[in-house]
Amino acid sequence: MDFAWVIDTFFALFAFTLIILMVPGFAMLEAGLVRTKNVTAVLTVNTMIYIVASLVFFLWGYTLAFGGWDGSSMSMYAAFLFQMAFVGKTVNIMSGGVSERTRIVPLAIFTLFMAGLIYPLVVNWTWGANMLSGSILDISSMHDLAGSTVIHSTGAWALLAAILIIGPRKGRYTKDGKVRVIPASNIPLVVLGALLLWIGWFGFNGGSVGSISSKENADTVALVVMNTNNAGLIGGLVVMILGYLKYRKFDITMILNGALGGLVAITAGADVVSPYAALIIGAIGGALVFYAVPFFDKLKIDDPVGALSVHLVNGIWGTIATGIWGSGVSLAAQIKGVVVVAVFAFVASYIIIFVINKITKFRTDEDNEVEGLDVSECGIESYPEFKRAI
Amino acid sequence: MDFAWVIDTFFALFAFTLIILMVPGFAMLEAGLVRTKNVTAVLTVNTMIYIVASLVFFLWGYTLAFGGWDGSSMSMYAAFLFQMAFVGKTVNIMSGGVSERTRIVPLAIFTLFMAGLIYPLVVNWTWGANMLSGSILDISSMHDLAGSTVIHSTGAWALLAAILIIGPRKGRYTKDGKVRVIPASNIPLVVLGALLLWIGWFGFNGGSVGSISSKENADTVALVVMNTNNAGLIGGLVVMILGYLKYRKFDITMILNGALGGLVAITAGADVVSPYAALIIGAIGGALVFYAVPFFDKLKIDDPVGALSVHLVNGIWGTIATGIWGSGVSLAAQIKGVVVVAVFAFVASYIIIFVINKITKFRTDEDNEVEGLDVSECGIESYPEFKRAI
Amino acid sequence: MDFAWVIDTFFALFAFTLIILMVPGFAMLEAGLVRTKNVTAVLTVNTMIYIVASLVFFLWGYTLAFGGWDGSSMSMYAAFLFQMAFVGKTVNIMSGGVSERTRIVPLAIFTLFMAGLIYPLVVNWTWGANMLSGSILDISSMHDLAGSTVIHSTGAWALLAAILIIGPRKGRYTKDGKVRVIPASNIPLVVLGALLLWIGWFGFNGGSVGSISSKENADTVALVVMNTNNAGLIGGLVVMILGYLKYRKFDITMILNGALGGLVAITAGADVVSPYAALIIGAIGGALVFYAVPFFDKLKIDDPVGALSVHLVNGIWGTIATGIWGSGVSLAAQIKGVVVVAVFAFVASYIIIFVINKITKFRTDEDNEVEGLDVSECGIESYPEFKRAI
Repeated sequence: MDFAWVIDTFFALFAFTLIILMVPGFAMLEAGLVRTKNVTAVLTVNTMIYIVASLVFFLWGYTLAFGGWDGSSMSMYAAFLFQMAFVGKTVNIMSGGVSERTRIVPLAIFTLFMAGLIYPLVVNWTWGANMLSGSILDISSMHDLAGSTVIHSTGAWALLAAILIIGPRKGRYTKDGKVRVIPASNIPLVVLGALLLWIGWFGFNGGSVGSISSKENADTVALVVMNTNNAGLIGGLVVMILGYLKYRKFDITMILNGALGGLVAITAGADVVSPYAALIIGAIGGALVFYAVPFFDKLKIDDPVGALSVHLVNGIWGTIATGIWGSGVSLAAQIKGVVVVAVFAFVASYIIIFVINKITKFRTDEDNEVEGLDVSECGIESYPEFKRAI
Repeated sequence: MDFAWVIDTFFALFAFTLIILMVPGFAMLEAGLVRTKNVTAVLTVNTMIYIVASLVFFLWGYTLAFGGWDGSSMSMYAAFLFQMAFVGKTVNIMSGGVSERTRIVPLAIFTLFMAGLIYPLVVNWTWGANMLSGSILDISSMHDLAGSTVIHSTGAWALLAAILIIGPRKGRYTKDGKVRVIPASNIPLVVLGALLLWIGWFGFNGGSVGSISSKENADTVALVVMNTNNAGLIGGLVVMILGYLKYRKFDITMILNGALGGLVAITAGADVVSPYAALIIGAIGGALVFYAVPFFDKLKIDDPVGALSVHLVNGIWGTIATGIWGSGVSLAAQIKGVVVVAVFAFVASYIIIFVINKITKFRTDEDNEVEGLDVSECGIESYPEFKRAI
Repeated sequence: MDFAWVIDTFFALFAFTLIILMVPGFAMLEAGLVRTKNVTAVLTVNTMIYIVASLVFFLWGYTLAFGGWDGSSMSMYAAFLFQMAFVGKTVNIMSGGVSERTRIVPLAIFTLFMAGLIYPLVVNWTWGANMLSGSILDISSMHDLAGSTVIHSTGAWALLAAILIIGPRKGRYTKDGKVRVIPASNIPLVVLGALLLWIGWFGFNGGSVGSISSKENADTVALVVMNTNNAGLIGGLVVMILGYLKYRKFDITMILNGALGGLVAITAGADVVSPYAALIIGAIGGALVFYAVPFFDKLKIDDPVGALSVHLVNGIWGTIATGIWGSGVSLAAQIKGVVVVAVFAFVASYIIIFVINKITKFRTDEDNEVEGLDVSECGIESYPEFKRAI
């Protein structure tokens, strides 16, 4: 019927638009978190990812994931655009965590593989055509509304593989075992970016319901947005309180990462839990970020934007939490999904990054790293007129 | 019927999303207007307000305001989210005007009271359950579409109370009676923030119609957005002209405050006046900002972002203007509403701020104020790498 | 019927909101591209344009263009707002290209003429009442969905006229024939602005379909957004590759201009070509930007933001491309439309700018240009606390 077709097409385009707000969201967040000398490079990487990942998904990724268009329920291109908006996020998660030391060309090559192979296969097994159907590895009964595992864990496993291969930033871990604090260069950009991501999440999760054109679906979409927001709010609150109790200061970058952690955690189950359960899930998500950030530093896993704490830890947590609080969700299926995706995404990413790294090094020269990637990669300083103190 | 339910739910979520754009809107505007040394603190306050106010409204504020859910016309959580998006704004208005000298903990405590008591009571009497029904104080016949009084004046009366208790920034008013100009630190952020607020206003006012699912309602929503935009445009224009005639310069921060003044002024009556009346209301709103800013400085009421001129003066003006030009609106009811909310919001805020201030001082130490709140409150500089000239 | 009326009104308001995101989009892009000393001025100009152009279009421009309201198919004010959102863009295109040397008052006067005369006449002949109907100059059979010619070329012809009259920035072209590079002052703002423009384009082009309330129209809207995005992506990609092959660097400002070039190019025909044709059109659009930027510099046509390469070259290219690939489009009609609008927009703009320039000089004094327009035009520095290196 026309009504459903029209409304669901309009709704998908609305959700798509919100998700595209996450492109400047990620870009501003990361540009604010890195040092001035690497800002242009990080912005260029974010732009490159949107371009390359989207085009690859258009050319063949979508077909690999979904096996073609099934003709149902809304305009084909609206359905496609909504899915296409997701793909770059997996690479954004990965690129953010290796920033301040990584060259753009190998990142672009990896983007081809992530958007054209790894991510489409994970989608195929979970939301898509399911080539694993009937096999022992079938994970299609995992409930993952908008990708705690499919998006966030997948991207973050790739990041972990990349960090293990590329190594920490020069000077991050001193010889006497200390962690050197490398301050964010532009806090307003961090806040702007995180809030744009938050708003984009309403489209990400809300749009993943797939339809708003019946009373039941409209109620589900509203519940999803409510839960999404609640989890983000409480994730931020928990980190605000934990941080204040420990340091008597309010660390805005940690608070926002706590909120993002809550948002990642609710992404799997926002349609099957109550707003109060969303508060519990998001609160634990925030706490996990608070404790995971120093934990990864203890392991000398250097992740300048906290992406592993936000996306990996909470991608896993959110998927499992959906098995605990989600109505009609099997905890066993959730755990199986987490494990299968983990093994595949980590191993596949590791091999691909390892091979690319042999051909053209991911890591820039030491001189370029000291001078900053803006000069060596882009030839453009981010703020050329401001005198620098450090 | 499903059609109305679906469309109005979708529309409420659309409007909600636009209003949440006002969170980065307020954050960027204020981060741009304060000095570099207080930017992180102001951003942290804005984030804290969104988190604390929204959660308090979820936990009990909504029920206090509306007495529960009446089950009509759209998905419950969509209706709830739309209302929830409003509550933080009242505190944003207050916190902006006391920035550059105020600690975060007492602001967080006040946020609890504003979002959990003062604002829900004002909503109860105007848009909500109306516990004053039948009493002499009944103000439910005041026409206030989206809160010239309910939101803007309420927040601004709290701000006035806070300024009277906390006092001006150190060095703002010199001993010889001069006002020292304290320049905004980042003009692009000011412009970005004001424009995001402007866009959010379309959702704020448009969504307050409550439904778009009939021809009549759709026409009203379109009229409201038209009027909202017109009032903002002309408010900016009037200040642009007045400022140029007086100083032969174009002061962008004043022009934008003029536009915001026009937007506040049209908020009460955007559904009951013509687009030409909106031009008159907004033009006077802009002029009021132009003259109110130096007026408050003459009274040594130090408001770094001009919030009293924008939100208090125009909150009152807009509500009264609706009594003058609004079809079917009683001027007497408008004035009564303004007065009752004024007395309640000012007195309640004054008492609460006074008591909080006795327990934990709102104002930071003099040393911290000189050094900036970023260090003492957050331990994070906003732009640590840029050499400062002042 | 109510359904179409409601949905199309809602859709027009959604598209309107996206287009208004282009106001901060243009403002941030230009504020990032100019030098620090001209940032406040460029932001003020952008704000002025939104205010003046919109009000003029409200007061008489709309009527001149469309001859009044025909009462069909959606709420009048929604249809009006959507059209009103376009008008400022033509002046934004012009003002960006003459920034860093132009006074605000003559720009405001020109805005009156562009929004109140030139642009409404072009709209009249193409999308509107068509006063040329039956004459030899009738160009109403040109297919220009959302204004490759009507918006982008019109604004850019005015820009070319303005540059010829105003001249290049001091020091841009040295006596020995070299072009001095004047670096962008704030790369994050450039990226933020370009991405906001990109998102706004979905509303610009998608909304220009005029209706989403039937299955056919919904499919067309989805196709338009798909094509728009595809053309932007590939435009950026082509410049990324061409630039890397030539310089072994990634120039983010050029990449984004390439994407914008692709977006301009697809604007005329997004509803009548396939997504693969959109890739071809956008790819050529990106390449044209890459080669046009140095070409204009060779002609000593100084355009600090690359507006001629993006909007003029691709406005023409996109209109002609629609004649090549668009189903049911006449190439001859496209070329005729391009030529008629070119002659009118260039000549009319030249005369008006020439006359304004005699009355009150567009160009600021040499001293003011050296010191920067922020001081002379606005009296407000953009970042007063940061020490400047250059």
